[in-house]
Amino acid sequence: MKDSTTYALTIAYDGTEYSGWQIQPNARTIQEEIQNVLSQILQEEITVIGSGRTDQGVHALKQVAHFRTKKTPDTKMLFRALNGMLPFDIRILNVSIADQSFHSQYSALSKEYHYYLCLEPIVLPFVRRFRTHVKMPLDLDLLKKGAQQFIGTKDFYSFSNSPDKGSCGKNSIRTIYRLDVVPTSDGIRFEFEGNGFLYKMVRNIVGMLLDVACKKRPIEDIEKVFLAKDRRRASRAAPPTGLFLAKITYS
Amino acid sequence: MKDSTTYALTIAYDGTEYSGWQIQPNARTIQEEIQNVLSQILQEEITVIGSGRTDQGVHALKQVAHFRTKKTPDTKMLFRALNGMLPFDIRILNVSIADQSFHSQYSALSKEYHYYLCLEPIVLPFVRRFRTHVKMPLDLDLLKKGAQQFIGTKDFYSFSNSPDKGSCGKNSIRTIYRLDVVPTSDGIRFEFEGNGFLYKMVRNIVGMLLDVACKKRPIEDIEKVFLAKDRRRASRAAPPTGLFLAKITYS
Repeated sequence: MKDSTTYALTIAYDGTEYSGWQIQPNARTIQEEIQNVLSQILQEEITVIGSGRTDQGVHALKQVAHFRTKKTPDTKMLFRALNGMLPFDIRILNVSIADQSFHSQYSALSKEYHYYLCLEPIVLPFVRRFRTHVKMPLDLDLLKKGAQQFIGTKDFYSFSNSPDKGSCGKNSIRTIYRLDVVPTSDGIRFEFEGNGFLYKMVRNIVGMLLDVACKKRPIEDIEKVFLAKDRRRASRAAPPTGLFLAKITYS
Repeated sequence: MKDSTTYALTIAYDGTEYSGWQIQPNARTIQEEIQNVLSQILQEEITVIGSGRTDQGVHALKQVAHFRTKKTPDTKMLFRALNGMLPFDIRILNVSIADQSFHSQYSALSKEYHYYLCLEPIVLPFVRRFRTHVKMPLDLDLLKKGAQQFIGTKDFYSFSNSPDKGSCGKNSIRTIYRLDVVPTSDGIRFEFEGNGFLYKMVRNIVGMLLDVACKKRPIEDIEKVFLAKDRRRASRAAPPTGLFLAKITYS
């Protein structure tokens, strides 16, 4: 696609009211909202491609997306017009001109996801859309020990709901560089950093860690589930409410 | 009202979806939600009295309310049942048995309000219900100097929309002990502490300070408005979105 300019967008959203990032029939999606507004502004049919999908109810601190156009709109104008026309639960944090070959998904080197648990008896109303409420007591030492076992290059087949839907087809080997458990004012935040994540992988790992930390399952089960390569052996996925796509790193 | 027990509630709420605290016909209010749920739990008509009203769209970190009943429900049961039945944007943080004579409004010694301004180009979606977005540049030195002029015992007549609706009838003299301007991650927070606040007083003061800090009005106007005792001389009230009833202090 010569003679076109590639624009990169950094996007924050509260995913509560959306059926996820990716366009689907009869559903309100973030991709479609942005695409519609951009097409209106540029008077041209625009396709917006995100670094990856986020599921229904999942949020983003810094999703990255790109689009190409034969026009050369000013980035400041786009920033203002997009934020002026989009709903307040989707905000464009940055608009820039990227290398023509830039691709928000294929150019990504690593991704970061955050998952917030509220461990207090009450979730404050101000953060209720952004927390998973855990009412059972958790053994935080077990939680941290369990988290260690997910770090490294592994076959995450058992921790993905449907790898075909993932970005890398049938290869379910991924590398998690970092999985930190960070204390917060009302609980903890998991910080996942990896070279890529399979469909529902973060939520499946959090679900497994919760089962271990509340002693519903022994910590040895993590290794067993990895080896079984059977999704039915893993724990139930944790809910989407606490999950944020936090950061995409490019070269 | 002998033979009755007085219960005190500490309540947090996101006021976005409500027409304020106080019961009104044909409107959804926080007082009514709590009163209805309590009446259902206790199978008795309960009147819940708050430390003061909050307007449509105003939030509370720690509103205090009380009610009296001839029954003696367990506080832990009430805590669980209330939070189980109330919508998630209203949370009961604490239930306790108070002195029989305790009155959430008349027993209050002082109150604290917080008002959040976002001064960034974009309000993050996660806090959009809790910020007033100020897009014009503000002179923070002027803002702080202006804030100083509201501290002390003064006649706030010009800074109240309708003192008849306030808690102390026609007396518009109040004492502000503290009005701090605290930096936050996306702007500033005003912290007001005083012995009482007239109807719309906090929002009117913030509105006046904004006019001064963006140089729409000279700082000398603050003193002039105080002396004029004329509400029409004051600036427009700042919107409710950024306002929180933060704390009530009792002896």
